[in-house]
Amino acid sequence: MSKPIYIINGPNLNLLGTREPEIYGSQTLTDIEDMCREAARTHGFKIEFSQSNIEGELVDKIQEAGEKGAAIIINPAAFTHTSIALYDAIKAVDVHCIEVHLSQPAARESFRRRSFVSEASQGTISGFGVKSYLLGLQAAIDLLKA
Amino acid sequence: MSKPIYIINGPNLNLLGTREPEIYGSQTLTDIEDMCREAARTHGFKIEFSQSNIEGELVDKIQEAGEKGAAIIINPAAFTHTSIALYDAIKAVDVHCIEVHLSQPAARESFRRRSFVSEASQGTISGFGVKSYLLGLQAAIDLLKA
Amino acid sequence: MSKPIYIINGPNLNLLGTREPEIYGSQTLTDIEDMCREAARTHGFKIEFSQSNIEGELVDKIQEAGEKGAAIIINPAAFTHTSIALYDAIKAVDVHCIEVHLSQPAARESFRRRSFVSEASQGTISGFGVKSYLLGLQAAIDLLKA
Amino acid sequence: MSKPIYIINGPNLNLLGTREPEIYGSQTLTDIEDMCREAARTHGFKIEFSQSNIEGELVDKIQEAGEKGAAIIINPAAFTHTSIALYDAIKAVDVHCIEVHLSQPAARESFRRRSFVSEASQGTISGFGVKSYLLGLQAAIDLLKA
Amino acid sequence: MSKPIYIINGPNLNLLGTREPEIYGSQTLTDIEDMCREAARTHGFKIEFSQSNIEGELVDKIQEAGEKGAAIIINPAAFTHTSIALYDAIKAVDVHCIEVHLSQPAARESFRRRSFVSEASQGTISGFGVKSYLLGLQAAIDLLKA
Amino acid sequence: MSKPIYIINGPNLNLLGTREPEIYGSQTLTDIEDMCREAARTHGFKIEFSQSNIEGELVDKIQEAGEKGAAIIINPAAFTHTSIALYDAIKAVDVHCIEVHLSQPAARESFRRRSFVSEASQGTISGFGVKSYLLGLQAAIDLLKA
Amino acid sequence: MSKPIYIINGPNLNLLGTREPEIYGSQTLTDIEDMCREAARTHGFKIEFSQSNIEGELVDKIQEAGEKGAAIIINPAAFTHTSIALYDAIKAVDVHCIEVHLSQPAARESFRRRSFVSEASQGTISGFGVKSYLLGLQAAIDLLKA
Amino acid sequence: MSKPIYIINGPNLNLLGTREPEIYGSQTLTDIEDMCREAARTHGFKIEFSQSNIEGELVDKIQEAGEKGAAIIINPAAFTHTSIALYDAIKAVDVHCIEVHLSQPAARESFRRRSFVSEASQGTISGFGVKSYLLGLQAAIDLLKA
Amino acid sequence: MSKPIYIINGPNLNLLGTREPEIYGSQTLTDIEDMCREAARTHGFKIEFSQSNIEGELVDKIQEAGEKGAAIIINPAAFTHTSIALYDAIKAVDVHCIEVHLSQPAARESFRRRSFVSEASQGTISGFGVKSYLLGLQAAIDLLKA
Amino acid sequence: MSKPIYIINGPNLNLLGTREPEIYGSQTLTDIEDMCREAARTHGFKIEFSQSNIEGELVDKIQEAGEKGAAIIINPAAFTHTSIALYDAIKAVDVHCIEVHLSQPAARESFRRRSFVSEASQGTISGFGVKSYLLGLQAAIDLLKA
Amino acid sequence: MSKPIYIINGPNLNLLGTREPEIYGSQTLTDIEDMCREAARTHGFKIEFSQSNIEGELVDKIQEAGEKGAAIIINPAAFTHTSIALYDAIKAVDVHCIEVHLSQPAARESFRRRSFVSEASQGTISGFGVKSYLLGLQAAIDLLKA
Amino acid sequence: MSKPIYIINGPNLNLLGTREPEIYGSQTLTDIEDMCREAARTHGFKIEFSQSNIEGELVDKIQEAGEKGAAIIINPAAFTHTSIALYDAIKAVDVHCIEVHLSQPAARESFRRRSFVSEASQGTISGFGVKSYLLGLQAAIDLLKA
Repeated sequence: MSKPIYIINGPNLNLLGTREPEIYGSQTLTDIEDMCREAARTHGFKIEFSQSNIEGELVDKIQEAGEKGAAIIINPAAFTHTSIALYDAIKAVDVHCIEVHLSQPAARESFRRRSFVSEASQGTISGFGVKSYLLGLQAAIDLLKA
Repeated sequence: MSKPIYIINGPNLNLLGTREPEIYGSQTLTDIEDMCREAARTHGFKIEFSQSNIEGELVDKIQEAGEKGAAIIINPAAFTHTSIALYDAIKAVDVHCIEVHLSQPAARESFRRRSFVSEASQGTISGFGVKSYLLGLQAAIDLLKA
Repeated sequence: MSKPIYIINGPNLNLLGTREPEIYGSQTLTDIEDMCREAARTHGFKIEFSQSNIEGELVDKIQEAGEKGAAIIINPAAFTHTSIALYDAIKAVDVHCIEVHLSQPAARESFRRRSFVSEASQGTISGFGVKSYLLGLQAAIDLLKA
Repeated sequence: MSKPIYIINGPNLNLLGTREPEIYGSQTLTDIEDMCREAARTHGFKIEFSQSNIEGELVDKIQEAGEKGAAIIINPAAFTHTSIALYDAIKAVDVHCIEVHLSQPAARESFRRRSFVSEASQGTISGFGVKSYLLGLQAAIDLLKA
Repeated sequence: MSKPIYIINGPNLNLLGTREPEIYGSQTLTDIEDMCREAARTHGFKIEFSQSNIEGELVDKIQEAGEKGAAIIINPAAFTHTSIALYDAIKAVDVHCIEVHLSQPAARESFRRRSFVSEASQGTISGFGVKSYLLGLQAAIDLLKA
Repeated sequence: MSKPIYIINGPNLNLLGTREPEIYGSQTLTDIEDMCREAARTHGFKIEFSQSNIEGELVDKIQEAGEKGAAIIINPAAFTHTSIALYDAIKAVDVHCIEVHLSQPAARESFRRRSFVSEASQGTISGFGVKSYLLGLQAAIDLLKA
Repeated sequence: MSKPIYIINGPNLNLLGTREPEIYGSQTLTDIEDMCREAARTHGFKIEFSQSNIEGELVDKIQEAGEKGAAIIINPAAFTHTSIALYDAIKAVDVHCIEVHLSQPAARESFRRRSFVSEASQGTISGFGVKSYLLGLQAAIDLLKA
Repeated sequence: MSKPIYIINGPNLNLLGTREPEIYGSQTLTDIEDMCREAARTHGFKIEFSQSNIEGELVDKIQEAGEKGAAIIINPAAFTHTSIALYDAIKAVDVHCIEVHLSQPAARESFRRRSFVSEASQGTISGFGVKSYLLGLQAAIDLLKA
Repeated sequence: MSKPIYIINGPNLNLLGTREPEIYGSQTLTDIEDMCREAARTHGFKIEFSQSNIEGELVDKIQEAGEKGAAIIINPAAFTHTSIALYDAIKAVDVHCIEVHLSQPAARESFRRRSFVSEASQGTISGFGVKSYLLGLQAAIDLLKA
Repeated sequence: MSKPIYIINGPNLNLLGTREPEIYGSQTLTDIEDMCREAARTHGFKIEFSQSNIEGELVDKIQEAGEKGAAIIINPAAFTHTSIALYDAIKAVDVHCIEVHLSQPAARESFRRRSFVSEASQGTISGFGVKSYLLGLQAAIDLLKA
Repeated sequence: MSKPIYIINGPNLNLLGTREPEIYGSQTLTDIEDMCREAARTHGFKIEFSQSNIEGELVDKIQEAGEKGAAIIINPAAFTHTSIALYDAIKAVDVHCIEVHLSQPAARESFRRRSFVSEASQGTISGFGVKSYLLGLQAAIDLLKA
Repeated sequence: MSKPIYIINGPNLNLLGTREPEIYGSQTLTDIEDMCREAARTHGFKIEFSQSNIEGELVDKIQEAGEKGAAIIINPAAFTHTSIALYDAIKAVDVHCIEVHLSQPAARESFRRRSFVSEASQGTISGFGVKSYLLGLQAAIDLLKA
């Protein structure tokens, strides 16, 4: 299977490992990328890993994934709760989209209770730290193999 | 009259023709650009046509139009409902601004009921597919000729 | 094409030209009727023009239009925001229905933000003064010719 | 018993049989009138059957029923959710008032969840198509015979 | 002064004297008309007294008063809380408009707390039974003599 | 027809006849059972009558009715307003479900305005005391015979 | 009749005549006191006139009026919208209480829409400037003479 | 490791395979139990699998798991959105608790947007059908091995 | 006096002493039972002490207390905020019902602000740990002796 | 123990015994003071008893109690629901604060559902008439002796 | 310049230095007064410094400042969020009014998000501890010198 | 001290001096930059001044400031009210962050009442035009020198 799985990361995730480690853990985004790349390879998949602080660039990536990717794993971070543009982009593409979160947003500030991305995605995995990515990857691969 | 009419398109509209055609129709954004350019020409107007998935670039375009354009026609797409930055930009420029939508947002998800862009614009045209642009163009030209 | 386009006007629009001209302009409803009739004629259409302050009479007119008309253009005025009966009537008839407003309701009192009529109509045109009617008429004719 | 049971119908019910038959069934309002008249006769009752799209005429009918009728069966249709005038009229008369609906409003648009008419009526029957009227009639007769 | 003061009464007020007398008192609307006419005459004024259960007819009366009347006293009853059409009509005419209520709406059901008519009127008098009309009349005359 | 009609009663209904008789009447649940059994027999139907104060047991009964019953008549009492589990159970079974209430919930405390059970049921009958059951039974039999 | 009518004024009303005269007029609180005293005298009544910026002193005055006064006329100003203590005090005394306002609160900021004082008072008069006091005085005297 | 992983299922999940298969798939709860047991065995774990329609029995199971179990995987179904008792139980026990859902609740009825169980749980996995359980199991095992 | 005072405990209270001791203290429910039994005995009263995690069993207990008990002391725990069934049960019985809480719910999560049980009970005591029970017992005994 | 327990009473409580005795009972505040003083003495405590209609004086008293008192018992009356100043004062002092109410606020007007004072206090006792004070006193003494 | 700058402090600020020092710091209100007086003197200004726990006395001070002061610096503390009387007072006077806070209210309890005082004031400075006063003073002096 | 203070400006602020000067004044953003640079220099500080209309670029700048800056002064303009991404970025960096506004947002449209940036920042200064920046700069320097 030649199309890569897109793993798309939202705002401030580039800070991982330094930012509020009691919530987000001490691994960096590069650590996560490495773990995902390795895990995907064991199942015969490639990944396309990216991060942006700009909502529109995430929209671009989702659109690119819709064309060139096999599936999307997205950690929309703060845009989870505010972005109808991400909602529209996910609805507009024809590949599976899986939402992941390092933390459990529902257990934090009340403004994190609503997720526009959940309303558009196939499934959601949250609260397992970097394992959320690996579980999301496995879910994507399961869906692709089904 | 030498200043062009700016036609500014928001996130995901670059996908037109492929995305959810039962809602948005099968014509592409380039088709719309061509139709608008032609329609404008018959009235002696030029258009400046753009699209961006990035809210801030739309703000830039509105500001540019405020300086170099005769009027603005904007389809803010998902930003319609979330962007106070667009609201502020439209309020800040001194040219007519007309909001257009391909679909009828009020008849869709409840989060599409409030439009910050409507609250700042001269007028709104929604629900007529690509004709919404042509009607918006005509409205702009009527205003400019008045 | 022999069926007329119904242009239906809601409460207080009979006062046009005298009432709050800074919002609604100085032309009377008869001026609008004349302009619409003339514009329709140039496209080979007749219009059936009416106004009522009574919600139920507007429901009657919509029903009549559903039977004898080619399309509906409605300015529901104050009933825009309160009438589920108009919503039901528009849903119940099988002709295109286009909502028009002289002003931009979203930019006025907050109780004007929700439009039940938008939720039932094909499209909406607002904010262009009497031109809103002419644009609505053109939209209707475009739909009928499509 | 000489006073008739008033059966009062609200806006758009005159369209029954043509309007959204998947929700409202294919029988006309005249069919309903005939069925009710026949059912009432078998219990020795007369009915007074009316329909109006005008809220105030429904208020008039309720008042008339308060004076000349034995009971009221009302299908307030769209006014169910918006009319305090009907609420006041029902509260003001001294006969039993039963609210009926062809469909199940609570299962439709969220704006149909509140019924002012329920808050003023003796009882409510909804969701059984034209049988809602016959059940309402039977309920009224039971109350009158009690 | 030859123009009459319009006293306009909303839905169900024709039942006064019979309806819920513990709230509204035992005097009829004709009693109120007589008292107002007499009180007006002592100050050299005529009154034009009307009642309707139909919102649109109340709009008509307000418009008529705007043209032929000196001032408006309105008891909008149930429409107080639901009618933007009355709000628009009152805003559209150029004579003083005074809202009166027999009872104290704020002390009753919670849906009676918002008054669209108050938001458009010069002043409001509520809670004094039929005296509310006489006080309203006096207020109107004071304004006219000022 | 061999399958019984299930009549399922929610919390506190076992107290009927003693609890707040001014709202619920003086007949006991056994009286209701007897009346329903007799009424069903005259139409050639059996009933399966039960009551529980435990939400989950009501879910069990609805599921049992879905398998072994011809239809469901349910008075969910307090669970009407709080139970998504009942909503899900009713949605999950393939027999008609009719909601009945002795009183008129909409006319009582404001927390009784929303019914999750109405949102899932075929129809609702409320406000007629024990007659609500008999009307519900007749509605069920009409549906089964249709 | 020997007990005085209490006229009680809330916060900032001591500034009358200087504060926002386009809303409140140019007469001072002493002018109002003089006018009220004179008007009361012509009907054989005395008044007890006071003002305080302290909510608790207004509560004291209401209690004093309950013991030594014939009736209360209160302009609660800002406390109208926030004071349950005034609500409780008015409920606790056994004399008529009439709420007056110089302006029409419902037509101003949205936080002025709810009046706790209206919910406890006999009646309300608002929007007539200083005449609101005179009308309130007349209403009180009418009630006392009834 | 000798303590079992508790897999706890809420109301109506016993119907799996028959109920709304377009949302929940065609596998039965026993199928899920078998798959989970097998998957656990491959990692050297036992499972304790249960289902109940009764909220309090689910509370019992969570407490039992807190004492005798290694971790909890819970699909709270309808109680997700209404049960503070489950929230309290999860908070009260000292083992990891993982919430799973077959469907994506956020994309369904609006009353499914809030999850009390998410607010108390370690993590959530939703939208992957029966795979949600397997991913949850893997997450639990990862946590136990960490 | 031979009838016992019922002390009824809601979900998760069986965990007392182990669960979140910083909120609920370190005494077990049996400790509380012993203390209450002893305290009651000194006043010549017996107690009937129970706990259940099942809402419907609490309803059963309340009903039993209504028949066989002298008074009710209830700690409804999580059901405080969600159970209309408890509200109805308390309203339906004719003995004093006193609500107790170990902690101060108003000072915790915002979803603990509304208590349906308070709306139906005679009185409430919260925030004193196990002393809340003893104070509640004393209040009950005072009421019974009055 | 030499520091007194402060018993602080809010607005309108000076009227006790005359005001709405069906809600508040017929004993005066002096009766309550005497009962509390006597009860305290039996446990070897003094009380400092005060009442004010002025929110700021209650703040003063709370501050004084923080310095010179052993504990606070407060009946904040109407300020319960509106005073963040009391909330701040209670938070700022280092002695136990117990909220008491004669009636059960949750069972009265809906604006009495939120208590800012509960959110800051140790515990609350409501609904037992004057016994609420004695129970509060006992709770305070228990806390002081602990 | 001879008129002093009024620095007005709201409820509980007299406790500064003792109350919740982790939020408010350890300096007393007298320390703040001294720092402000010194800072003002270096710019040639006097200050009039006051504190009250009584809302109405703060209104008095604002009015006094309107007459005798050059500007107002106000820390309204708890009244920030509840006092329309302060709002009205600030609107009523003709001098600059600057709102200061030691802490950052928006980052604390949700009931501190709305500031009525901000809606009436020229500007706001919050979150800098005692420096908020000095910055406010500087802002006032800048405005006075402009 | 070698690290610069970052002054970060949000959308549309590049228009300063031309846009709605009655709200924002006539100075340009370059004027503000010059004033700030000069003011910083007098205290021995450098500034890093930037503006962007793109939310993600502001996130980038905040992150850069977290690494290379001494403090942040941010005028988030329209993003104040909508950006959780800015909230997260500010929370993620370890330098003081001060929010400034030229105008007083709370006194403008109601959608400007909530500030996500305030909820994450150290302090806020608003309403003083370009002086807000200078006061913010001084606050930052005070914090850095403390």
